[in-house]
Amino acid sequence: MDFKEHITVVEDFPHEGISFKDITTLMENGEVYRKAIDEMVTFAKKREVDVVVGPEARGFVVGCPVSYALEAGFVPVRKAGKLPREVLEVDYGLEYGKDSLNIHKDSIKPGQKVLITDDLLATGGTIQATISMVEELGGIVVGIAFLIELSFLEGRKNLSKYDVHSLVTY
Amino acid sequence: MDFKEHITVVEDFPHEGISFKDITTLMENGEVYRKAIDEMVTFAKKREVDVVVGPEARGFVVGCPVSYALEAGFVPVRKAGKLPREVLEVDYGLEYGKDSLNIHKDSIKPGQKVLITDDLLATGGTIQATISMVEELGGIVVGIAFLIELSFLEGRKNLSKYDVHSLVTY
Repeated sequence: MDFKEHITVVEDFPHEGISFKDITTLMENGEVYRKAIDEMVTFAKKREVDVVVGPEARGFVVGCPVSYALEAGFVPVRKAGKLPREVLEVDYGLEYGKDSLNIHKDSIKPGQKVLITDDLLATGGTIQATISMVEELGGIVVGIAFLIELSFLEGRKNLSKYDVHSLVTY
Repeated sequence: MDFKEHITVVEDFPHEGISFKDITTLMENGEVYRKAIDEMVTFAKKREVDVVVGPEARGFVVGCPVSYALEAGFVPVRKAGKLPREVLEVDYGLEYGKDSLNIHKDSIKPGQKVLITDDLLATGGTIQATISMVEELGGIVVGIAFLIELSFLEGRKNLSKYDVHSLVTY
């Protein structure tokens, strides 16, 4: 299936010069959304995933249905102040400034096989921060799955130690 | 299944006096998370749902797997500034102040049967705002499903015209 047909490119959002990839039109189509998730599930099944990890909020729209289909747990990575119990925190560079991400300290058990999911691979900053937290908790990152990869930003180079899968490339 | 066993109650989060219901411990357990979603899917299947709508971010962790299981579309409701195309905007009262929610104007087609999902029913403000947007776009709200209902806040009274289902009540 050509998932690209269902993604809407919106120019100059959220800032001038950015060509935003809007996945809401893909998700609104139940058949297409399901096929996209199923392609990630196929990737995940070969890796015996114990738990799926995704950063808020668009990592949830990919990771939660993947975790449901696998009957694997889902662990959210959230912005600071959102998770109520003891967290691990990591700062990461954004395109515009800095931010920090949190994960619950008891969310990953040492040795668990982790699939990381997000909607989009740009420079890979969010995902590198997510990997570092998962590994600090003792998780083994067995794969990383994206709906979209912006290959001109070369984020994949920053993830060269990992098994990266993306459904659509720009 | 007693889903309550898997929800962690965290006192005084995010503010003193609030008894926060943390669903991350439920979601980390793949079997329990799947059973919770399947209970919502059973509710939805009787209502011939065309599309699932959920507010960010915890509405995604419930709504996205439900939409996957139903092979129905998913439409996100987001905070202002997050959706890239033409939106409908509605202000709503929060426990602490005011905020606004957005939905893409072309996301719901008139006559579509809509299931609204969220993790938690408190006073119902977010869901009332979501309903008003769905109905303005011509959608028919055929059901509203929550993981958790805080019955002492009586949010259900504000939703008395609708078919409301919750898995766990406090």
